[in-house]
Amino acid sequence: MIKPANGRSRVVIEEIEPQVNAGRHPARRILGDEVTVRAAIFADGHDMVRAQLLYRHASERKWRTAPMTAGVNDAWSGSFPVDRLGMWRYSLLGWVDHFTTWVSDLRKRLAAQPVAAGAAGAGPQTARGDIPLALRTGAILLEHAAGLARGLEARKLREAVHRLTALADDARAFYEFPLSSDQVELAEKYPDRSLATQWEPELLVWVDRERARFSAWYELFPRSAAKDPGRHGTFADVEAQLPEIAAMGFDVLYLPPIHPIGRAFRKGKNNTVTAAPDDVGSPWAIGDIQAVKAPAHKNDNGGHKSIHPELGTFEDFEHLVNQTKTHGMEMALDIAFQCSPDHPWVKEHPEWFTIRPDGSIQYAENPPKRYQDIYPLNFESADWRGLWDELYSVFEFWIERGVRIFRVDNPHTKAMGFWEWCLGALRNKYPDTIFLAEAFTRPHPMYWLAKVGFTQSYTYFTWRNTKYELTSYLEELARPPVSDFFRPNFWPNTPDILHKSLQDGGRPAFMIRLFLAATLAANYGMYGPAFELCESAPATPAPGKTESEEYLNSEKYEIRQRDRNAPGSLVPLIAAINRIRREHAALQQNETLWFHGTDNPQLLCYSKTAAQGTLLMVVNLDPVYDQSGWTDLDLVALNLEPAESYVVEDLLTETRYTWRGPRNYVALRPGLQAAHVLRIVRGV
Amino acid sequence: MIKPANGRSRVVIEEIEPQVNAGRHPARRILGDEVTVRAAIFADGHDMVRAQLLYRHASERKWRTAPMTAGVNDAWSGSFPVDRLGMWRYSLLGWVDHFTTWVSDLRKRLAAQPVAAGAAGAGPQTARGDIPLALRTGAILLEHAAGLARGLEARKLREAVHRLTALADDARAFYEFPLSSDQVELAEKYPDRSLATQWEPELLVWVDRERARFSAWYELFPRSAAKDPGRHGTFADVEAQLPEIAAMGFDVLYLPPIHPIGRAFRKGKNNTVTAAPDDVGSPWAIGDIQAVKAPAHKNDNGGHKSIHPELGTFEDFEHLVNQTKTHGMEMALDIAFQCSPDHPWVKEHPEWFTIRPDGSIQYAENPPKRYQDIYPLNFESADWRGLWDELYSVFEFWIERGVRIFRVDNPHTKAMGFWEWCLGALRNKYPDTIFLAEAFTRPHPMYWLAKVGFTQSYTYFTWRNTKYELTSYLEELARPPVSDFFRPNFWPNTPDILHKSLQDGGRPAFMIRLFLAATLAANYGMYGPAFELCESAPATPAPGKTESEEYLNSEKYEIRQRDRNAPGSLVPLIAAINRIRREHAALQQNETLWFHGTDNPQLLCYSKTAAQGTLLMVVNLDPVYDQSGWTDLDLVALNLEPAESYVVEDLLTETRYTWRGPRNYVALRPGLQAAHVLRIVRGV
Repeated sequence: MIKPANGRSRVVIEEIEPQVNAGRHPARRILGDEVTVRAAIFADGHDMVRAQLLYRHASERKWRTAPMTAGVNDAWSGSFPVDRLGMWRYSLLGWVDHFTTWVSDLRKRLAAQPVAAGAAGAGPQTARGDIPLALRTGAILLEHAAGLARGLEARKLREAVHRLTALADDARAFYEFPLSSDQVELAEKYPDRSLATQWEPELLVWVDRERARFSAWYELFPRSAAKDPGRHGTFADVEAQLPEIAAMGFDVLYLPPIHPIGRAFRKGKNNTVTAAPDDVGSPWAIGDIQAVKAPAHKNDNGGHKSIHPELGTFEDFEHLVNQTKTHGMEMALDIAFQCSPDHPWVKEHPEWFTIRPDGSIQYAENPPKRYQDIYPLNFESADWRGLWDELYSVFEFWIERGVRIFRVDNPHTKAMGFWEWCLGALRNKYPDTIFLAEAFTRPHPMYWLAKVGFTQSYTYFTWRNTKYELTSYLEELARPPVSDFFRPNFWPNTPDILHKSLQDGGRPAFMIRLFLAATLAANYGMYGPAFELCESAPATPAPGKTESEEYLNSEKYEIRQRDRNAPGSLVPLIAAINRIRREHAALQQNETLWFHGTDNPQLLCYSKTAAQGTLLMVVNLDPVYDQSGWTDLDLVALNLEPAESYVVEDLLTETRYTWRGPRNYVALRPGLQAAHVLRIVRGV
Repeated sequence: MIKPANGRSRVVIEEIEPQVNAGRHPARRILGDEVTVRAAIFADGHDMVRAQLLYRHASERKWRTAPMTAGVNDAWSGSFPVDRLGMWRYSLLGWVDHFTTWVSDLRKRLAAQPVAAGAAGAGPQTARGDIPLALRTGAILLEHAAGLARGLEARKLREAVHRLTALADDARAFYEFPLSSDQVELAEKYPDRSLATQWEPELLVWVDRERARFSAWYELFPRSAAKDPGRHGTFADVEAQLPEIAAMGFDVLYLPPIHPIGRAFRKGKNNTVTAAPDDVGSPWAIGDIQAVKAPAHKNDNGGHKSIHPELGTFEDFEHLVNQTKTHGMEMALDIAFQCSPDHPWVKEHPEWFTIRPDGSIQYAENPPKRYQDIYPLNFESADWRGLWDELYSVFEFWIERGVRIFRVDNPHTKAMGFWEWCLGALRNKYPDTIFLAEAFTRPHPMYWLAKVGFTQSYTYFTWRNTKYELTSYLEELARPPVSDFFRPNFWPNTPDILHKSLQDGGRPAFMIRLFLAATLAANYGMYGPAFELCESAPATPAPGKTESEEYLNSEKYEIRQRDRNAPGSLVPLIAAINRIRREHAALQQNETLWFHGTDNPQLLCYSKTAAQGTLLMVVNLDPVYDQSGWTDLDLVALNLEPAESYVVEDLLTETRYTWRGPRNYVALRPGLQAAHVLRIVRGV
C-alpha cells in the first residue's frame, strides 16, 4: 500500500535488473566493470519522466548519481563503474519533470504560430495569450532551479527567469524559443525532485577481483611431488615444480587438504576398508597432529589448523605460498569441514557432532554403507554459534598465512545459513578472497551456494558431452539470471571424477574436454598430472555397479609419482591454450558466449567477443572419427556483413583461412586437430 | 544476512509461485479456485525435508495448513482452496524431518540384514548393534511426537516408543520393521518443526467472484435507447431493451457516463469545436446539474454524483439497476475522472486542478491541440488527500445505489498511487466490486493498473489481427506471470475505436472479430447496436492523417437511434456464441488456451479445456477469401491418442465430422461460416 507521504509521487519503478532473488542476494561483478542497470520507469499521463541511478560503495554514506536513459516502452538503462572491491548499493530515482515537459510543449506551441511574423493574433491552433502564459510558467520552473543552484549558475538561471518574464510582459505576435541550450542544460542540472520516487529496498552488487571471473586452476597432491621414488612429497618438492606449472600457464595452484590425516578407520589403497600400516590415507579425513605420531609443529593448533608433518612446517608452507606468487600464481587450499575420529574437535566439542543414544558419535553413513573414518558436523547443534565461530576461524587462520583462495569440499552437506553468515563475514573483512564450491549436488543447492557467497562453483560440465547438452547448459550459465550470481569453473577431471567419455575416448577425448573447458568457461581447472598424461583407467566398479568414475589406484589413497612430460603428454597443448586464454580477453568472460549453427551434430561452434576482438571456436566432439561440415554463423553476432570476406586465423596452428558469409567448410581430426580457435581478422 | 536465532534452521525456500512483483502485489484468483503454490525447497545434505503450505483469509488470525509434495530436483507443490472473497495470505514452512529420515534409513538397514533369521551376527554391511541403536533413536523421535499429541494419539505413540525400546533391549539376530503404517502416519502428523524455516514476507492472493474471469459486456448509450424518433432516451427506454440484450446472452450492461454533460466548450456533432444549441455533447465531459438547465433531482450532489436529468431520476436509475439483475445481468457504470468547466469541483476545489500563472485553470491540451471542455485533475495537488477521498466517495456513492461493476475511463492519466490506494480500500470494503480499466496505453502502465487493483482491462486485441500477432499476444496474456494479475477483456469495437479491419472488411470482418474476442478471451464486450449492425463508416481523418479510427457521426456527440434487428444484423450469431460460452466451461477461462498448427497462415486454430470437455476453434482470419488447409493438432494437449479417431461437433452448425490424428482438413468461407467451434466427442 502507498504510504500517504508518497501520495504526490507519480513515478513507478519496477523490473529492475540485475536483481538476484528479488534483491535478497547481491549480483556479482568484477573490479573495473561498468554495472548496467535496467528498469521500467513510468508515470501516469503524458508528462516527461526523468530518472537517475543512485550508487555507492557500502562503506560510503552519500549516493553518487548516474543518468538513466529512456528506450522504447518505458525501458530505461544506465550504468555505474565499480572501482573498489566489496559490496556496492544502488537504487533508482524517478520523477515527473515539469521543466523538460514545459520545454517540449513550448517548442510545439511555437511551431504552431503563424509563420508570417506580421500576422495578427495567434494561429488557428494556438490561442492568443497561450505563449506568454507558457513563458510565465517557465519562469516559475526556472526560479525553482535557481533556488537549488548557487553562485554563477544561480545567477544565470535568474537571468533566464527575467528574460521569460520580460517576454511575457511584452506580448508579441511571434516568438522564438527563448532559452539558450546552455540555459536549458543548466535548468536540467537542477531538477525538482521533491516528488521523486526512490526504489526501496536498496539493491546490492558484490565486486570481486579479476581472478574470480578468469582463472586456470591446477590441482596436485603435494605428497606425490617428490622426484625420488617412493619418498613422501613435501612443500619443497611442490616448489620445485612451480616453474613447470607456471610455464603451462596456470593461475591457481590448488592443493588437497594439507592437514594431518586421521589414523582411526583410515582407508587403504583403492578405498579399501582396512589400511596397511604404511598406507598414507585420504587427505580429506582430517585428524589430529598427535595421531600422525610425529612431533607437533610449533604453534600447532590441531586439526584444520595443522599441517601434516610429512609435508613440511608452517615456515615451509608460507615459503611455498610466496614462491607461488613469485611465479605469477596463487595458492588455493582445500577446506573440508569433516573430521576423522582423531580430530581434536571430537574430544573438545562432542556437542558439535550428532550423539547416538549410546553416547557414541555418529559417523557418516548412507545406510547400509558406513564411513566410520568420517564424523560429520551437526549444524543443528545447540552450540551452533560456537561451531560457526570455529569454522570461520579456520578460514581466517589460513588467510593470515597468506592464502586468499579456498576450494571448499562438499559445501552442500553443511548448513546453507552457515555459509551465508561465514562467507558474508569473511568477504566483508577480506574482499579479495575467492571461494570455489565443490557443489556436486542438485541444481537448487548448487545455485544457492553461489547466491550466498561462493565465488566460483564446480558444475555439471563433466556430464555434459553432446552438442545439445553443452549448448543448453551453457545458454543457462552464460545468461542472466544465472550469470548474475553463478561463476562456473569447468573441470574435465578431478581426483573423484574420471568420466566415462575419458575412460573410453582416451587421449583424443582428453584434448576435446580440455579445449571445451578452457574456451567455454573463463574459469577452468584440471587435476594433474593425471590429466596431462591422459590417465584413463577406472577403479573396479562397486558391487552391483557396471561403471566407476573413480580412478584406479586413486591418488586419494596412495602416493603416485609421475612425469608430466612423458611421451604423449598434453603439456604443450595445455600451455598453448592457456597462452591463448591470457592473450585474448574474449576468453576471459562468459557473458558474450554465442552458439552458431553447423550441419553436423558432432561439430560445436561458438564465439566469444571482447573489445579487443572476437574468437570463434569449432570443436569436433567425436574422439574417434574425422568430422566435417558447414558452419552457419550468426553474422550479426560476429559483426560481419552478409557477403563479407574475412580471414580467420587458427591460433593453435597459425594457419589462415579466407571465409565468406555464414557457410564455411570445416574438417577436424581427433587427436591431431580436434578444434579450431579462430581469430577473426577484419577488413580483408 | 541470516538472523542468529535461525542458525539451526537448515531448510531454504525460494522461487515461490504465484508471486507478482516479488510479492508486492497479490496474485488473482476466483472464488472456489484451488490455488496451486510451487516452490523450490531444500536443505543441505541428505536428510529428508518436509514442507507445508500455510494459508488463511486476511480476516482470519490462524494459519490453516495443506501438504506440499516433492517433485524432482527440489520442486515442491501444494494447493489450497479459496472459499471466500477478498485477500488471502499464504506462506511456506519447510523443515528437516528426522522421523521420516529415520524410517527411510531403518528400512535400508533392515533390508541389509542377513536373510536367514538364524545367521549369527549382522550382515557384512550392517554392524552388530546398528539396528538396536537405530531403534533407540526412533524411540526418542516418537517420544517427541507423543509430546505434541494428546489423548488416544499420544497413548498410541507412547506404545510405539515402548515397543522400540523393548526391541532394542532384546537384541535379536533379525528384525522386521517395527512400526505399523498407522503408527508411522501418526508420528508424521506431529512433526518436530522447532527448527522449521518459514517464508517471509507472507504472500498475497486476491479472490474475486466468477464474473471477474468470465463476462460478456454490452455497451449502449441510454440517450439513443428511445423508440420514438428524435426523443432523448431514458433509463426507462433502456429497461425496455433489457429482454433483447439478455436474450443475446450478455452478463454486463455497460452505460457511458450518466452524469450531467457540461455546457462550457461543449463539442458538436462529429467532434466539432462549437456545438449547436441542441447538440447533446459528450457524456465524458462531466458538468454540473445546474449547467444542464434542468431542475435538480432531490438529493443531487452535483458532478460525478449527479444524473443527467434527461435520462431520469435516481429512482429510475435504481429501478434499471434492479431490472438488469432481474434479467440475469449487472449494470456497469463508467467513471471518468475529469471535469467540464461547469463541474462543481472547479468552483469548490480549484486546488485540485492545475492553476496557470494568470490564475485560470489549466484545460487538457496536447500542444498545440487544446481541449478546453476538459479540466484534468492534478494529482500533485497539495490537497491530494482531499482529492483522493472525494474520488473514492464517487465510487462509494454508486456502490450504495447498487452498482458493483465500474468501467474506468483513461485510468492511466491518473496517478498510479491513487489507484493503488483507492481500489485497495474499495475492494477491501466491497470485495464483490469489479473494475475494468480502459487502459489504452503502453504495456507497463497497462499491466501496472492491473497489478494495483483493476479487475479486468482493455487490451491491444483490437490491433492484433494476424495469426502471428494473435498467437504471440495471447501466449503472453494466458500464461504466468501475466495471467496471475491481468485479466484481458477483448473488445472488437468501442465508441472510440472502429479498427481499419472492420472499416475494410465489413460484415465478414465483424463476424471474425466477434468470434475471436468471444473464444480467445473469457471476458469480452462490444459496443452496440453499432456492432450488431456492422457499422463501418469512419469519421473524416484529422488534418494531415489518412485514416481515422473514430466513427462517422459518432454516438459520442449525438443521439443515434437504431434497430439492432435490422436485416443483416449479427444478433443471431452473437446469441449463439454467447450461448456456447455459457454452456461450455472451457470458454470461461484463459489459462488452458493452446494454439495448434495449421498449414495456412490465414487459419488460426486453438483449444480451451475444462473438466467438462475440450473445445477446438478454427478461424479463417481472411474476411474476403475462402481459406482451407490442414490442422496440425497437438494431440497431447487434446488428450487424444496418435491414431485415434474422434468425432468433432460444430456447436454453431451442429454438423459432425469424423477426424483422426493431428491432420484434418478444414475449409472456411467468410461471411457464411468463418469459424468452427468444435466440441471433441471421445470414444467413437
